Amino acid sequence: MPELAYLNGKIMPIDEAMVPIEDRGYQFGDAVYEYIASYKGRLFRTGMHLDRLERSLGALDFPPVSRSEMRREILRLFESAQMPRAAIYIQISRGVAPRNHAFSRSLDVQTVMTIKPIPDTHDYVDHGAKAITMQDFRWGRCDIKTVQLLPNVLAKQKALDDGAYDAIFVASDGVVREATSSNLFIVSNGIAVTHPLTLNILPGITRAVMLEICQDRDISVEERTFDTEELFAADEVFLTGSTTEVLPIVEIDDRLIADGTVGTWTGTLYRELRRRAEGN
Amino acid sequence: MPELAYLNGKIMPIDEAMVPIEDRGYQFGDAVYEYIASYKGRLFRTGMHLDRLERSLGALDFPPVSRSEMRREILRLFESAQMPRAAIYIQISRGVAPRNHAFSRSLDVQTVMTIKPIPDTHDYVDHGAKAITMQDFRWGRCDIKTVQLLPNVLAKQKALDDGAYDAIFVASDGVVREATSSNLFIVSNGIAVTHPLTLNILPGITRAVMLEICQDRDISVEERTFDTEELFAADEVFLTGSTTEVLPIVEIDDRLIADGTVGTWTGTLYRELRRRAEGN
Repeated sequence: MPELAYLNGKIMPIDEAMVPIEDRGYQFGDAVYEYIASYKGRLFRTGMHLDRLERSLGALDFPPVSRSEMRREILRLFESAQMPRAAIYIQISRGVAPRNHAFSRSLDVQTVMTIKPIPDTHDYVDHGAKAITMQDFRWGRCDIKTVQLLPNVLAKQKALDDGAYDAIFVASDGVVREATSSNLFIVSNGIAVTHPLTLNILPGITRAVMLEICQDRDISVEERTFDTEELFAADEVFLTGSTTEVLPIVEIDDRLIADGTVGTWTGTLYRELRRRAEGN
Repeated sequence: MPELAYLNGKIMPIDEAMVPIEDRGYQFGDAVYEYIASYKGRLFRTGMHLDRLERSLGALDFPPVSRSEMRREILRLFESAQMPRAAIYIQISRGVAPRNHAFSRSLDVQTVMTIKPIPDTHDYVDHGAKAITMQDFRWGRCDIKTVQLLPNVLAKQKALDDGAYDAIFVASDGVVREATSSNLFIVSNGIAVTHPLTLNILPGITRAVMLEICQDRDISVEERTFDTEELFAADEVFLTGSTTEVLPIVEIDDRLIADGTVGTWTGTLYRELRRRAEGN
Protein backbone atom coordinates (compact mmCIF):
# COMPACT_ATOMS: atom_id res chain seq x y z
CA MET A 1 0.00 0.00 0.00
CA PRO A 2 1.16 3.56 -0.61
CA GLU A 3 2.02 6.14 2.00
CA LEU A 4 -1.08 8.01 3.15
CA ALA A 5 -2.05 11.27 4.78
CA TYR A 6 -4.94 12.07 7.08
CA LEU A 7 -6.35 15.57 7.22
CA ASN A 8 -9.17 16.42 9.64
CA GLY A 9 -10.97 13.13 9.07
CA LYS A 10 -10.12 12.44 5.43
CA ILE A 11 -7.54 9.94 4.21
CA MET A 12 -5.71 10.81 0.98
CA PRO A 13 -2.34 10.64 -0.80
CA ILE A 14 0.27 12.74 1.03
CA ASP A 15 0.79 15.17 -1.84
CA GLU A 16 -2.91 16.03 -1.87
CA ALA A 17 -2.95 17.04 1.81
CA MET A 18 -2.78 20.82 2.02
CA VAL A 19 -3.28 23.27 4.87
CA PRO A 20 -4.22 26.96 4.72
CA ILE A 21 -1.30 29.39 4.92
CA GLU A 22 -2.92 30.91 8.02
CA ASP A 23 -2.79 27.63 9.90
CA ARG A 24 -1.03 28.73 13.10
CA GLY A 25 1.24 25.72 12.78
CA TYR A 26 2.68 27.33 9.65
CA GLN A 27 3.00 30.92 10.81
CA PHE A 28 3.95 30.44 14.49
CA GLY A 29 5.00 26.80 14.93
CA ASP A 30 1.91 26.66 17.13
CA ALA A 31 1.48 22.89 16.90
CA VAL A 32 2.36 19.68 18.71
CA TYR A 33 3.18 16.26 17.34
CA GLU A 34 3.75 12.59 18.05
CA TYR A 35 5.45 9.74 16.24
CA ILE A 36 4.22 6.19 16.78
CA ALA A 37 6.03 3.15 15.37
CA SER A 38 4.49 -0.19 14.55
CA TYR A 39 6.05 -3.62 14.73
CA LYS A 40 4.58 -6.65 12.99
CA GLY A 41 1.31 -4.86 12.32
CA ARG A 42 0.84 -3.48 15.83
CA LEU A 43 1.34 0.08 17.00
CA PHE A 44 3.69 0.23 20.00
CA ARG A 45 2.60 2.05 23.16
CA THR A 46 -0.19 4.08 21.58
CA GLY A 47 -1.60 4.82 25.04
CA MET A 48 1.64 6.42 26.22
CA HIS A 49 1.79 8.55 23.06
CA LEU A 50 -1.81 9.65 23.60
CA ASP A 51 -0.97 10.53 27.22
CA ARG A 52 1.90 12.71 26.08
CA LEU A 53 -0.18 14.28 23.31
CA GLU A 54 -2.83 15.25 25.85
CA ARG A 55 -0.14 16.71 28.08
CA SER A 56 1.32 18.75 25.19
CA LEU A 57 -2.12 20.09 24.24
CA GLY A 58 -2.86 21.03 27.85
CA ALA A 59 0.51 22.72 28.37
CA LEU A 60 -0.15 25.01 25.41
CA ASP A 61 -3.75 25.73 26.33
CA PHE A 62 -5.17 24.01 23.24
CA PRO A 63 -8.79 22.92 23.44
CA PRO A 64 -9.07 19.27 24.54
CA VAL A 65 -9.08 16.59 21.84
CA SER A 66 -11.17 13.46 22.36
CA ARG A 67 -8.77 10.69 23.27
CA SER A 68 -11.05 7.93 22.06
CA GLU A 69 -11.63 9.66 18.74
CA MET A 70 -7.91 10.30 18.32
CA ARG A 71 -7.16 6.64 18.99
CA ARG A 72 -9.89 5.55 16.57
CA GLU A 73 -8.59 7.82 13.80
CA ILE A 74 -4.98 6.69 14.29
CA LEU A 75 -6.12 3.08 14.00
CA ARG A 76 -8.26 3.84 10.97
CA LEU A 77 -5.26 5.35 9.17
CA PHE A 78 -3.04 2.48 10.28
CA GLU A 79 -5.52 -0.10 9.00
CA SER A 80 -6.01 1.75 5.72
CA ALA A 81 -2.30 1.63 4.98
CA GLN A 82 -1.72 -2.05 5.79
CA MET A 83 1.94 -1.56 6.61
CA PRO A 84 3.26 -3.94 9.28
CA ARG A 85 6.35 -1.83 10.03
CA ALA A 86 5.48 1.83 9.79
CA ALA A 87 5.62 5.17 11.54
CA ILE A 88 2.57 7.36 12.03
CA TYR A 89 3.31 11.06 12.34
CA ILE A 90 0.56 13.05 14.07
CA GLN A 91 0.52 16.86 14.14
CA ILE A 92 -2.15 18.96 15.79
CA SER A 93 -2.08 22.70 15.27
CA ARG A 94 -4.07 25.27 17.22
CA GLY A 95 -6.15 26.14 14.18
CA VAL A 96 -6.55 28.57 11.33
CA ALA A 97 -6.98 32.29 12.02
CA PRO A 98 -5.80 35.66 10.68
CA ARG A 99 -2.19 36.09 11.79
CA ASN A 100 -1.96 37.40 15.35
CA HIS A 101 0.34 36.22 18.12
CA ALA A 102 -2.58 36.10 20.57
CA PHE A 103 -5.01 33.24 20.01
CA SER A 104 -8.68 32.52 20.38
CA ARG A 105 -9.53 29.56 22.61
CA SER A 106 -12.38 28.55 20.33
CA LEU A 107 -10.47 27.67 17.16
CA ASP A 108 -10.87 24.24 15.59
CA VAL A 109 -7.63 22.35 15.94
CA GLN A 110 -6.23 20.95 12.69
CA THR A 111 -5.22 17.29 12.75
CA VAL A 112 -2.74 16.01 10.21
CA MET A 113 -1.22 12.54 10.07
CA THR A 114 0.99 10.59 7.71
CA ILE A 115 1.86 6.93 7.62
CA LYS A 116 5.02 5.68 5.97
CA PRO A 117 6.92 2.40 6.01
CA ILE A 118 10.17 2.39 7.99
CA PRO A 119 13.11 -0.01 7.79
CA ASP A 120 12.92 -2.97 10.14
CA THR A 121 15.81 -1.51 12.11
CA HIS A 122 18.33 1.31 11.76
CA ASP A 123 21.81 0.95 10.30
CA TYR A 124 23.76 1.48 13.51
CA VAL A 125 22.76 -1.51 15.65
CA ASP A 126 25.95 -3.47 15.09
CA HIS A 127 28.67 -0.86 14.84
CA GLY A 128 27.24 2.29 16.43
CA ALA A 129 27.28 5.87 15.26
CA LYS A 130 29.27 9.05 15.80
CA ALA A 131 27.89 12.19 17.44
CA ILE A 132 29.01 15.73 18.05
CA THR A 133 28.21 17.94 21.05
CA MET A 134 26.61 21.34 20.63
CA GLN A 135 25.47 24.00 23.04
CA ASP A 136 21.75 23.66 23.71
CA PHE A 137 20.18 26.70 22.08
CA ARG A 138 16.58 25.45 22.06
CA TRP A 139 13.74 27.22 23.84
CA GLY A 140 12.89 26.68 27.50
CA ARG A 141 10.02 24.18 27.05
CA CYS A 142 11.60 21.19 25.36
CA ASP A 143 9.38 19.03 27.56
CA ILE A 144 6.46 19.88 25.26
CA LYS A 145 6.60 18.03 21.94
CA THR A 146 6.08 20.99 19.62
CA VAL A 147 7.22 21.79 16.09
CA GLN A 148 9.62 24.47 17.44
CA LEU A 149 12.29 22.34 15.80
CA LEU A 150 14.56 24.68 13.88
CA PRO A 151 17.45 24.40 16.40
CA ASN A 152 17.11 20.61 16.17
CA VAL A 153 17.14 20.86 12.36
CA LEU A 154 20.27 23.03 12.35
CA ALA A 155 22.04 20.79 14.88
CA LYS A 156 21.19 17.58 13.01
CA GLN A 157 22.39 19.07 9.73
CA LYS A 158 25.62 20.28 11.38
CA ALA A 159 26.21 16.74 12.64
CA LEU A 160 25.71 15.27 9.17
CA ASP A 161 27.95 17.93 7.61
CA ASP A 162 30.62 16.98 10.17
CA GLY A 163 30.34 13.30 9.23
CA ALA A 164 28.41 12.34 12.37
CA TYR A 165 24.95 10.87 12.85
CA ASP A 166 23.53 13.29 15.40
CA ALA A 167 24.22 16.20 17.74
CA ILE A 168 24.01 16.02 21.54
CA PHE A 169 22.76 19.19 23.22
CA VAL A 170 24.82 20.34 26.20
CA ALA A 171 23.64 23.14 28.52
CA SER A 172 25.89 26.14 29.22
CA ASP A 173 26.78 24.60 32.62
CA GLY A 174 28.03 21.44 30.91
CA VAL A 175 24.99 19.27 31.66
CA VAL A 176 24.28 16.76 28.90
CA ARG A 177 20.66 16.88 27.82
CA GLU A 178 19.62 14.82 24.81
CA ALA A 179 20.10 14.50 21.06
CA THR A 180 18.11 16.28 18.32
CA SER A 181 15.24 13.78 18.32
CA SER A 182 16.15 11.20 20.96
CA ASN A 183 16.94 10.95 24.66
CA LEU A 184 20.41 9.96 25.78
CA PHE A 185 21.64 7.35 28.27
CA ILE A 186 25.11 6.57 29.49
CA VAL A 187 26.28 3.44 31.27
CA SER A 188 28.81 4.31 33.91
CA ASN A 189 30.20 2.09 36.70
CA GLY A 190 27.47 -0.49 36.15
CA ILE A 191 24.60 2.01 36.27
CA ALA A 192 22.49 3.34 33.40
CA VAL A 193 22.05 7.11 33.76
CA THR A 194 19.76 9.54 31.97
CA HIS A 195 18.79 13.20 32.42
CA PRO A 196 15.81 13.64 34.78
CA LEU A 197 12.49 14.91 33.43
CA THR A 198 12.69 18.72 33.51
CA LEU A 199 11.55 21.49 31.17
CA ASN A 200 14.73 20.93 29.15
CA ILE A 201 14.23 17.44 27.75
CA LEU A 202 11.47 15.55 26.03
CA PRO A 203 9.74 12.93 28.19
CA GLY A 204 10.50 10.18 25.68
CA ILE A 205 8.29 7.11 25.43
CA THR A 206 11.26 4.86 24.66
CA ARG A 207 13.12 6.49 27.56
CA ALA A 208 10.21 5.43 29.80
CA VAL A 209 10.25 1.92 28.34
CA MET A 210 14.00 1.75 29.14
CA LEU A 211 13.26 2.63 32.76
CA GLU A 212 10.57 -0.10 32.81
CA ILE A 213 12.98 -2.65 31.40
CA CYS A 214 15.70 -1.71 33.90
CA GLN A 215 13.22 -2.05 36.77
CA ASP A 216 11.85 -5.39 35.51
CA ARG A 217 15.32 -6.81 35.06
CA ASP A 218 16.99 -5.37 38.16
CA ILE A 219 19.30 -3.20 36.12
CA SER A 220 20.51 -0.19 38.12
CA VAL A 221 19.31 3.04 36.58
CA GLU A 222 19.44 6.65 37.76
CA GLU A 223 17.65 9.74 36.52
CA ARG A 224 20.17 12.48 37.29
CA THR A 225 22.16 15.11 35.46
CA PHE A 226 25.71 14.44 34.32
CA ASP A 227 28.25 16.55 32.47
CA THR A 228 30.36 16.10 29.36
CA GLU A 229 33.27 14.79 31.40
CA GLU A 230 31.13 11.87 32.58
CA LEU A 231 29.78 11.45 29.04
CA PHE A 232 33.24 11.06 27.50
CA ALA A 233 34.33 8.72 30.31
CA ALA A 234 31.22 6.50 30.03
CA ASP A 235 31.44 2.79 29.31
CA GLU A 236 28.51 3.02 26.92
CA VAL A 237 26.38 5.77 25.39
CA PHE A 238 23.12 5.26 23.53
CA LEU A 239 20.17 7.23 22.20
CA THR A 240 16.52 6.21 22.54
CA GLY A 241 13.43 7.14 20.57
CA SER A 242 10.40 5.69 18.85
CA THR A 243 12.17 5.20 15.54
CA THR A 244 15.71 5.58 16.92
CA GLU A 245 14.95 2.58 19.19
CA VAL A 246 18.24 2.01 21.06
CA LEU A 247 21.06 3.47 19.00
CA PRO A 248 24.66 3.04 20.18
CA ILE A 249 26.98 6.07 20.08
CA VAL A 250 30.59 4.95 19.94
CA GLU A 251 32.39 8.19 19.17
CA ILE A 252 31.68 11.79 20.24
CA ASP A 253 33.61 14.85 19.01
CA ASP A 254 36.22 12.49 17.53
CA ARG A 255 36.80 10.76 20.90
CA LEU A 256 36.01 7.07 21.22
CA ILE A 257 33.58 5.98 23.92
CA ALA A 258 35.37 3.16 25.78
CA ASP A 259 36.96 1.05 23.01
CA GLY A 260 34.62 2.39 20.31
CA THR A 261 32.51 -0.75 19.99
CA VAL A 262 28.86 -1.30 20.91
CA GLY A 263 28.57 -2.19 24.61
CA THR A 264 26.76 -5.18 26.10
CA TRP A 265 24.12 -3.17 27.97
CA THR A 266 23.22 -1.32 24.81
CA GLY A 267 22.77 -4.58 22.94
CA THR A 268 20.74 -6.13 25.76
CA LEU A 269 18.44 -3.12 26.07
CA TYR A 270 17.95 -2.98 22.31
CA ARG A 271 16.96 -6.65 22.15
CA GLU A 272 14.63 -6.31 25.12
CA LEU A 273 12.96 -3.27 23.52
CA ARG A 274 12.43 -5.24 20.32
CA ARG A 275 11.08 -8.22 22.26
CA ARG A 276 8.49 -6.02 23.96
CA ALA A 277 7.65 -4.10 20.78
CA GLU A 278 7.15 -7.30 18.82
CA GLY A 279 4.96 -8.70 21.57
CA ASN A 280 7.10 -11.79 22.17
CA MET B 1 -9.93 45.88 -2.62
CA PRO B 2 -9.96 42.62 -0.67
CA GLU B 3 -7.10 41.13 1.28
CA LEU B 4 -4.91 38.99 -0.97
CA ALA B 5 -2.42 36.16 -0.75
CA TYR B 6 0.60 35.40 -2.90
CA LEU B 7 1.82 31.84 -3.27
CA ASN B 8 4.93 31.08 -5.32
CA GLY B 9 4.09 33.61 -8.01
CA LYS B 10 0.29 33.46 -7.99
CA ILE B 11 -2.01 36.05 -6.40
CA MET B 12 -5.29 34.76 -4.95
CA PRO B 13 -7.78 35.17 -2.09
CA ILE B 14 -6.17 34.28 1.25
CA ASP B 15 -8.47 31.35 1.94
CA GLU B 16 -7.48 29.70 -1.35
CA ALA B 17 -3.76 29.75 -0.53
CA MET B 18 -2.74 26.30 0.71
CA VAL B 19 0.62 24.67 1.36
CA PRO B 20 1.50 20.97 1.44
CA ILE B 21 1.59 19.40 4.90
CA GLU B 22 5.22 18.45 4.28
CA ASP B 23 6.24 22.07 3.81
CA ARG B 24 9.12 22.29 6.31
CA GLY B 25 7.66 25.52 7.59
CA TYR B 26 4.72 23.50 8.88
CA GLN B 27 6.55 20.51 10.35
CA PHE B 28 9.72 22.18 11.71
CA GLY B 29 9.09 25.93 11.79
CA ASP B 30 11.84 25.98 9.16
CA ALA B 31 10.88 29.36 7.69
CA VAL B 32 11.69 33.04 7.96
CA TYR B 33 9.45 36.06 7.60
CA GLU B 34 9.18 39.82 7.24
CA TYR B 35 6.44 42.37 7.79
CA ILE B 36 6.44 45.58 5.75
CA ALA B 37 4.02 48.43 6.43
CA SER B 38 2.86 51.00 3.92
CA TYR B 39 1.90 54.62 4.51
CA LYS B 40 -0.09 56.66 2.00
CA GLY B 41 0.41 54.10 -0.73
CA ARG B 42 4.17 53.64 -0.24
CA LEU B 43 5.94 50.72 1.41
CA PHE B 44 8.29 51.92 4.16
CA ARG B 45 11.94 50.84 4.11
CA THR B 46 11.53 47.88 1.77
CA GLY B 47 15.27 47.82 1.19
CA MET B 48 16.03 47.35 4.88
CA HIS B 49 13.47 44.54 5.10
CA LEU B 50 15.03 42.84 2.07
CA ASP B 51 18.48 43.19 3.68
CA ARG B 52 17.22 41.48 6.82
CA LEU B 53 15.41 38.80 4.83
CA GLU B 54 18.64 37.98 2.97
CA ARG B 55 20.48 37.83 6.28
CA SER B 56 17.86 35.45 7.77
CA LEU B 57 18.02 33.17 4.71
CA GLY B 58 21.81 33.11 4.84
CA ALA B 59 21.95 32.42 8.59
CA LEU B 60 19.78 29.32 8.09
CA ASP B 61 21.65 28.10 5.02
CA PHE B 62 18.64 28.56 2.72
CA PRO B 63 19.41 28.83 -0.98
CA PRO B 64 19.68 32.49 -2.05
CA VAL B 65 16.54 34.25 -3.22
CA SER B 66 16.79 36.88 -5.97
CA ARG B 67 16.52 40.24 -4.31
CA SER B 68 15.27 42.00 -7.42
CA GLU B 69 12.63 39.33 -8.03
CA MET B 70 11.54 39.45 -4.40
CA ARG B 71 11.19 43.22 -4.56
CA ARG B 72 9.27 42.99 -7.84
CA GLU B 73 6.86 40.40 -6.44
CA ILE B 74 6.25 42.39 -3.25
CA LEU B 75 5.44 45.45 -5.36
CA ARG B 76 3.20 43.42 -7.66
CA LEU B 77 1.17 42.19 -4.69
CA PHE B 78 1.08 45.68 -3.19
CA GLU B 79 -0.15 47.20 -6.44
CA SER B 80 -2.75 44.46 -6.93
CA ALA B 81 -4.31 45.20 -3.57
CA GLN B 82 -4.49 48.99 -3.90
CA MET B 83 -4.42 49.57 -0.15
CA PRO B 84 -2.70 52.82 0.88
CA ARG B 85 -2.21 51.72 4.51
CA ALA B 86 -1.44 48.02 4.64
CA ALA B 87 0.94 45.41 5.97
CA ILE B 88 2.56 42.83 3.74
CA TYR B 89 3.52 39.60 5.50
CA ILE B 90 6.21 37.60 3.71
CA GLN B 91 7.12 34.06 4.73
CA ILE B 92 9.76 31.92 3.02
CA SER B 93 10.08 28.29 4.01
CA ARG B 94 12.95 25.99 3.14
CA GLY B 95 10.74 23.87 0.92
CA VAL B 96 8.65 20.73 0.73
CA ALA B 97 10.23 17.35 1.45
CA PRO B 98 9.43 14.09 3.26
CA ARG B 99 9.78 14.78 6.98
CA ASN B 100 13.40 14.58 8.12
CA HIS B 101 15.25 16.95 10.43
CA ALA B 102 18.19 17.07 8.02
CA PHE B 103 17.58 19.05 4.85
CA SER B 104 18.59 19.03 1.23
CA ARG B 105 20.25 22.21 -0.02
CA SER B 106 18.50 21.90 -3.37
CA LEU B 107 14.87 22.29 -2.29
CA ASP B 108 12.72 24.99 -3.86
CA VAL B 109 11.88 27.58 -1.23
CA GLN B 110 8.17 28.33 -0.81
CA THR B 111 7.20 31.98 -0.84
CA VAL B 112 3.94 33.04 0.75
CA MET B 113 2.70 36.59 1.26
CA THR B 114 -0.46 38.26 2.42
CA ILE B 115 -1.56 41.88 2.24
CA LYS B 116 -4.11 43.30 4.63
CA PRO B 117 -5.22 46.80 5.56
CA ILE B 118 -4.08 48.06 8.95
CA PRO B 119 -5.46 50.91 11.06
CA ASP B 120 -3.83 54.27 10.46
CA THR B 121 -2.30 54.07 13.91
CA HIS B 122 -2.56 51.92 17.02
CA ASP B 123 -4.81 52.63 19.97
CA TYR B 124 -2.08 53.43 22.50
CA VAL B 125 -0.50 56.58 21.08
CA ASP B 126 -2.17 58.98 23.49
CA HIS B 127 -2.43 57.07 26.75
CA GLY B 128 0.10 54.25 26.49
CA ALA B 129 -0.23 50.58 27.32
CA LYS B 130 0.53 48.18 30.15
CA ALA B 131 3.09 45.39 29.96
CA ILE B 132 4.23 42.48 32.08
CA THR B 133 7.74 41.07 32.39
CA MET B 134 8.44 37.41 31.73
CA GLN B 135 11.58 35.31 31.76
CA ASP B 136 12.96 34.99 28.23
CA PHE B 137 12.43 31.34 27.31
CA ARG B 138 12.96 31.71 23.57
CA TRP B 139 15.67 29.93 21.63
CA GLY B 140 19.22 31.21 21.26
CA ARG B 141 18.89 32.80 17.80
CA CYS B 142 16.25 35.49 18.21
CA ASP B 143 18.36 37.62 15.87
CA ILE B 144 17.02 35.55 12.96
CA LYS B 145 13.43 36.42 12.05
CA THR B 146 12.01 32.88 12.00
CA VAL B 147 8.57 31.43 12.72
CA GLN B 148 9.91 29.83 15.95
CA LEU B 149 7.29 31.98 17.64
CA LEU B 150 5.49 29.76 20.13
CA PRO B 151 7.16 31.36 23.19
CA ASN B 152 6.18 34.76 21.80
CA VAL B 153 2.61 33.50 21.30
CA LEU B 154 2.38 32.16 24.84
CA ALA B 155 3.88 35.33 26.33
CA LYS B 156 1.60 37.65 24.34
CA GLN B 157 -1.47 35.63 25.36
CA LYS B 158 -0.35 35.67 29.01
CA ALA B 159 -0.07 39.46 28.82
CA LEU B 160 -3.58 39.77 27.39
CA ASP B 161 -4.96 37.35 29.99
CA ASP B 162 -3.35 39.54 32.68
CA GLY B 163 -5.00 42.67 31.28
CA ALA B 164 -1.80 43.98 29.68
CA TYR B 165 -0.88 44.73 26.07
CA ASP B 166 2.38 42.84 25.79
CA ALA B 167 5.09 40.91 27.61
CA ILE B 168 8.70 42.06 27.97
CA PHE B 169 11.28 39.27 27.91
CA VAL B 170 13.91 39.45 30.66
CA ALA B 171 17.00 37.20 30.68
CA SER B 172 17.81 35.09 33.75
CA ASP B 173 20.50 37.64 34.72
CA GLY B 174 17.88 40.41 34.77
CA VAL B 175 18.81 41.98 31.42
CA VAL B 176 15.78 43.42 29.63
CA ARG B 177 15.63 42.20 26.03
CA GLU B 178 12.53 43.10 24.01
CA ALA B 179 8.78 42.46 23.76
CA THR B 180 7.03 39.63 21.92
CA SER B 181 7.12 41.34 18.52
CA SER B 182 8.84 44.67 19.12
CA ASN B 183 12.13 46.07 20.38
CA LEU B 184 12.20 48.08 23.59
CA PHE B 185 13.70 51.47 24.45
CA ILE B 186 13.90 53.32 27.72
CA VAL B 187 14.63 56.99 28.28
CA SER B 188 16.78 57.46 31.35
CA ASN B 189 18.61 60.60 32.50
CA GLY B 190 18.12 62.23 29.13
CA ILE B 191 19.45 59.31 27.12
CA ALA B 192 17.48 56.81 25.00
CA VAL B 193 18.77 53.30 25.67
CA THR B 194 18.13 50.03 23.86
CA HIS B 195 19.58 46.50 24.00
CA PRO B 196 22.58 46.08 21.67
CA LEU B 197 22.32 43.77 18.65
CA THR B 198 23.20 40.27 19.89
CA LEU B 199 21.85 36.78 19.18
CA ASN B 200 19.09 37.47 21.72
CA ILE B 201 17.10 40.24 20.08
CA LEU B 202 15.67 40.93 16.67
CA PRO B 203 17.53 43.59 14.66
CA GLY B 204 14.37 45.66 14.23
CA ILE B 205 13.96 47.97 11.27
CA THR B 206 12.05 50.53 13.34
CA ARG B 207 14.75 50.21 16.02
CA ALA B 208 17.29 51.15 13.33
CA VAL B 209 15.11 54.06 12.19
CA MET B 210 15.00 55.27 15.82
CA LEU B 211 18.81 55.26 15.94
CA GLU B 212 18.83 57.23 12.66
CA ILE B 213 16.38 59.77 14.04
CA CYS B 214 18.36 60.17 17.25
CA GLN B 215 21.55 60.73 15.28
CA ASP B 216 19.94 63.20 12.87
CA ARG B 217 18.41 65.18 15.71
CA ASP B 218 21.31 65.06 18.17
CA ILE B 219 19.33 62.99 20.64
CA SER B 220 21.63 60.97 22.93
CA VAL B 221 21.15 57.25 22.41
CA GLU B 222 23.04 54.22 23.71
CA GLU B 223 22.94 50.60 22.65
CA ARG B 224 23.73 48.81 25.90
CA THR B 225 22.12 46.28 28.21
CA PHE B 226 20.10 47.38 31.22
CA ASP B 227 18.25 45.47 33.92
CA THR B 228 14.71 45.52 35.28
CA GLU B 229 15.71 47.95 38.02
CA GLU B 230 16.66 50.52 35.38
CA LEU B 231 13.50 49.65 33.42
CA PHE B 232 11.19 50.37 36.34
CA ALA B 233 13.10 53.58 37.20
CA ALA B 234 13.04 54.87 33.60
CA ASP B 235 11.48 58.21 32.69
CA GLU B 236 9.91 56.69 29.58
CA VAL B 237 9.55 53.23 28.06
CA PHE B 238 8.41 52.48 24.54
CA LEU B 239 8.25 49.62 22.05
CA THR B 240 9.16 49.85 18.37
CA GLY B 241 8.17 47.76 15.37
CA SER B 242 6.92 47.97 11.82
CA THR B 243 3.26 47.94 12.84
CA THR B 244 3.87 48.74 16.52
CA GLU B 245 5.52 52.00 15.35
CA VAL B 246 6.44 53.78 18.63
CA LEU B 247 4.18 52.47 21.37
CA PRO B 248 4.40 53.99 24.86
CA ILE B 249 4.46 51.64 27.86
CA VAL B 250 3.25 53.45 30.95
CA GLU B 251 2.85 50.60 33.43
CA ILE B 252 4.82 47.38 33.90
CA ASP B 253 3.90 44.60 36.36
CA ASP B 254 1.39 46.98 37.97
CA ARG B 255 4.05 49.64 38.58
CA LEU B 256 3.74 53.01 36.88
CA ILE B 257 6.60 54.23 34.71
CA ALA B 258 7.32 57.78 35.95
CA ASP B 259 3.87 59.34 36.44
CA GLY B 260 2.13 56.84 34.15
CA THR B 261 1.61 59.23 31.24
CA VAL B 262 3.18 59.18 27.79
CA GLY B 263 6.56 60.93 27.85
CA THR B 264 7.71 63.75 25.57
CA TRP B 265 10.52 61.80 23.92
CA THR B 266 8.13 58.99 23.05
CA GLY B 267 5.75 61.46 21.43
CA THR B 268 8.53 63.22 19.53
CA LEU B 269 10.01 59.98 18.22
CA TYR B 270 6.57 58.72 17.19
CA ARG B 271 5.82 61.89 15.24
CA GLU B 272 9.25 61.87 13.60
CA LEU B 273 8.78 58.21 12.56
CA ARG B 274 5.41 59.06 11.02
CA ARG B 275 6.90 62.07 9.25
CA ARG B 276 9.58 59.91 7.65
CA ALA B 277 7.19 57.07 6.86
CA GLU B 278 4.72 59.42 5.22
CA GLY B 279 7.51 61.01 3.20
CA ASN B 280 6.93 64.52 4.45
